[in-house]
Amino acid sequence: MGFIDVIAKKRDGYALSREDIDEFVYGVSAANIPDYQVSALLMAIVIRGMSDRETGWLTDAMVRSGDRVDLSDVPGTKVGKHSTGGVGDKVSIVLAPIVAACGVVLPKLSGRGLGHTGGTLDKLEAIPGFRVNLSVDEFIRMLTDVGTSIVGQTVSLAPADKKLYALRDVTATVPSLPLIAASVMSKKLAEGSDALVLDVKCGHGAFMKSETDARDLARLMVSIGSRAGLRTEAFITDMDAPLGRAVGNALEVIECIETLKGHGPDDITALVVALASRILVVSGRYARPDAEPAVRRALASGRALEKMRAMIEWQGGDAGVLDDYARLPRAARRHAIAAGADGYVAALQADLVGRASMAVGAGRQRIEDRIDHSAGVVIAKKPGESVRAGETILELLYNDDRGLGEASALASSAIRISAEPPVLRPLLLGTVA
Amino acid sequence: MGFIDVIAKKRDGYALSREDIDEFVYGVSAANIPDYQVSALLMAIVIRGMSDRETGWLTDAMVRSGDRVDLSDVPGTKVGKHSTGGVGDKVSIVLAPIVAACGVVLPKLSGRGLGHTGGTLDKLEAIPGFRVNLSVDEFIRMLTDVGTSIVGQTVSLAPADKKLYALRDVTATVPSLPLIAASVMSKKLAEGSDALVLDVKCGHGAFMKSETDARDLARLMVSIGSRAGLRTEAFITDMDAPLGRAVGNALEVIECIETLKGHGPDDITALVVALASRILVVSGRYARPDAEPAVRRALASGRALEKMRAMIEWQGGDAGVLDDYARLPRAARRHAIAAGADGYVAALQADLVGRASMAVGAGRQRIEDRIDHSAGVVIAKKPGESVRAGETILELLYNDDRGLGEASALASSAIRISAEPPVLRPLLLGTVA
Repeated sequence: MGFIDVIAKKRDGYALSREDIDEFVYGVSAANIPDYQVSALLMAIVIRGMSDRETGWLTDAMVRSGDRVDLSDVPGTKVGKHSTGGVGDKVSIVLAPIVAACGVVLPKLSGRGLGHTGGTLDKLEAIPGFRVNLSVDEFIRMLTDVGTSIVGQTVSLAPADKKLYALRDVTATVPSLPLIAASVMSKKLAEGSDALVLDVKCGHGAFMKSETDARDLARLMVSIGSRAGLRTEAFITDMDAPLGRAVGNALEVIECIETLKGHGPDDITALVVALASRILVVSGRYARPDAEPAVRRALASGRALEKMRAMIEWQGGDAGVLDDYARLPRAARRHAIAAGADGYVAALQADLVGRASMAVGAGRQRIEDRIDHSAGVVIAKKPGESVRAGETILELLYNDDRGLGEASALASSAIRISAEPPVLRPLLLGTVA
Repeated sequence: MGFIDVIAKKRDGYALSREDIDEFVYGVSAANIPDYQVSALLMAIVIRGMSDRETGWLTDAMVRSGDRVDLSDVPGTKVGKHSTGGVGDKVSIVLAPIVAACGVVLPKLSGRGLGHTGGTLDKLEAIPGFRVNLSVDEFIRMLTDVGTSIVGQTVSLAPADKKLYALRDVTATVPSLPLIAASVMSKKLAEGSDALVLDVKCGHGAFMKSETDARDLARLMVSIGSRAGLRTEAFITDMDAPLGRAVGNALEVIECIETLKGHGPDDITALVVALASRILVVSGRYARPDAEPAVRRALASGRALEKMRAMIEWQGGDAGVLDDYARLPRAARRHAIAAGADGYVAALQADLVGRASMAVGAGRQRIEDRIDHSAGVVIAKKPGESVRAGETILELLYNDDRGLGEASALASSAIRISAEPPVLRPLLLGTVA
């Protein structure tokens, strides 16, 4: 069957066969299907959709397009964690040492920030000396020694997905649950974990704006994982406002350390405890009633903080930052955004806060842009908190004032004040297992 | 608005604005929109559709992408004719001299055959010396002198359509009524006629397989023409079986001459008379009751045949062919396909007959292939006619026997014999005005 016939099949709303999908992904990898045919099929998929079975085949073909990490030499159950991304989402950096302190291995391949969304690798690189580019051998040794490691993609995981994503980005074919699910899950399956916990975010600062879409995406990813033999569970969590009180790389590292010390913001702590507990359960090493107490003990005893120290040291970073935040880069200047009226913070729109942070240099527009690890936004008042006119709600931290005007406008527009206390939806919106 | 936003709009089922469509067509012409973006939008259009208004704007933008023929120096009303193509469709070659003989100008820009469908230019070139590449000046002079002229596209009509079509062909985005209608009508509007009569074919040998699709396409093209100020009417006609008894270039020229002499097959004669009468009426020069008698007089008096002579002479061809068919190329060999049983010809599937003709060398797979003007298929028995076992139904005429095996298999598979006389649908299925 020629590739034009494959395109025509999806155009007319029919399901693709496993062979059709293999031909597609192989052709994308080998670059022997022209981009204009790939994008025509992508658009047909976006509009016509794909069944769970087709999506599973697509995921599998993308996994097979590249390498798979072999973690069989690492003892114990390995549990992966993935967030669909948001603003102020530093959860992995707190979660990894907690889970490792509880004796479950958490291998983590992370990415960089782009647009209004931050990236875990950028945050860790705010720590002087921290290396995210470990070899596969180093990654495996570190997982065996420490129980966790957060690194960049050292091997070529699902390269077909990377090529597809680049084309989707410029052909308006990004918003498709099957394509998004296959993209995420192909990388997760290639990472070689035994189980996976997903954090699917929804709201202004997330890729999925609506809770319904987030739930559908979670359901689809859990289905793909299960079909592929990877035990997968998902949380649906709110991302209307940023997580925590810090947005920006060094600022978020400080917040992570504070959380490990037991002084973190309520939302970060609650989400980390929920995710970590679930990871312990899906690992099979903990019964459900034992998981949360174990997590809380790891925090209270300081064992989680010590795991963080071990992690930073293994990856060449300055572990002195744990005790002395002055060792982290610090922005020279501050600009406050104050409340215009008495009342309550009704909303703090996450994408606008993320873009304000990007405007002061903490994020990047294009993947090749340099970032300022010290810059960012501090959230003095979270949604639901009361304010008086003139009180600071957001504070911009920066060195270069070229982006300040834009950042200030974005930050101001993110804030909504109400006379009455707002009704906010809970952080944890549901789970899919 | 960026072009990605235009793609996203149609992806989500919204109507494009006139500016969006202009940006699209201009970008295709100027080649500053990459093919992968164009094909993504085309797929979105195929699946989501376009309103008549959007289709009209698309047509207009494609007209403006190139030249327009200015026929204002040619006296009288100019009426265009266009067929959506079929097998054995030699109607234009008979129609043009009849209409001109009745005093109405019929300018005709034609194309070449491709796949199972023949092309008027190829047929005319079977006449020794016949030139289809006139300059615009020659075209205008000939229209003034003779009243008709059938030529290739001497100017760059709707070049954006040409580019789009090339991409549609390889991205499974051909079957879309709005795209097909805009493609046809952009060229017709650029041709500079005052009115237009369309022959929209449906059935096995036509682009539109179903009568419903043909009717929708006709309605859409008539609507586009009317909105653009071009009085447009359409016939819906059957193309389940080939038109006439000859398929192949020189063979069809002979059939055309025979029809002009009053000895043509019933179906060709009926269709030509119907189309010619309608053209006389839409020209405004004839009242409805006078048109058909005028057409019949032009045929019976020999004036139409003399117009054909003038046409051939003007275009450098050997008008001696009108009296001596031996001056046309003639195939050296014949192969008969006989009936396997007594009964009636129930069907003669046009696309298979067309492909048989192509296989013996009368047509081309790719536009650069050479053709054999003498080759083709003679239809000894038309659908509805009775046959005895062993009687010839189709005859293949050829020089090169390399394609004979394939042609013979195709021709055989085109034939269906029934014990009872078949119920055939009429040739003329309806009109849209």
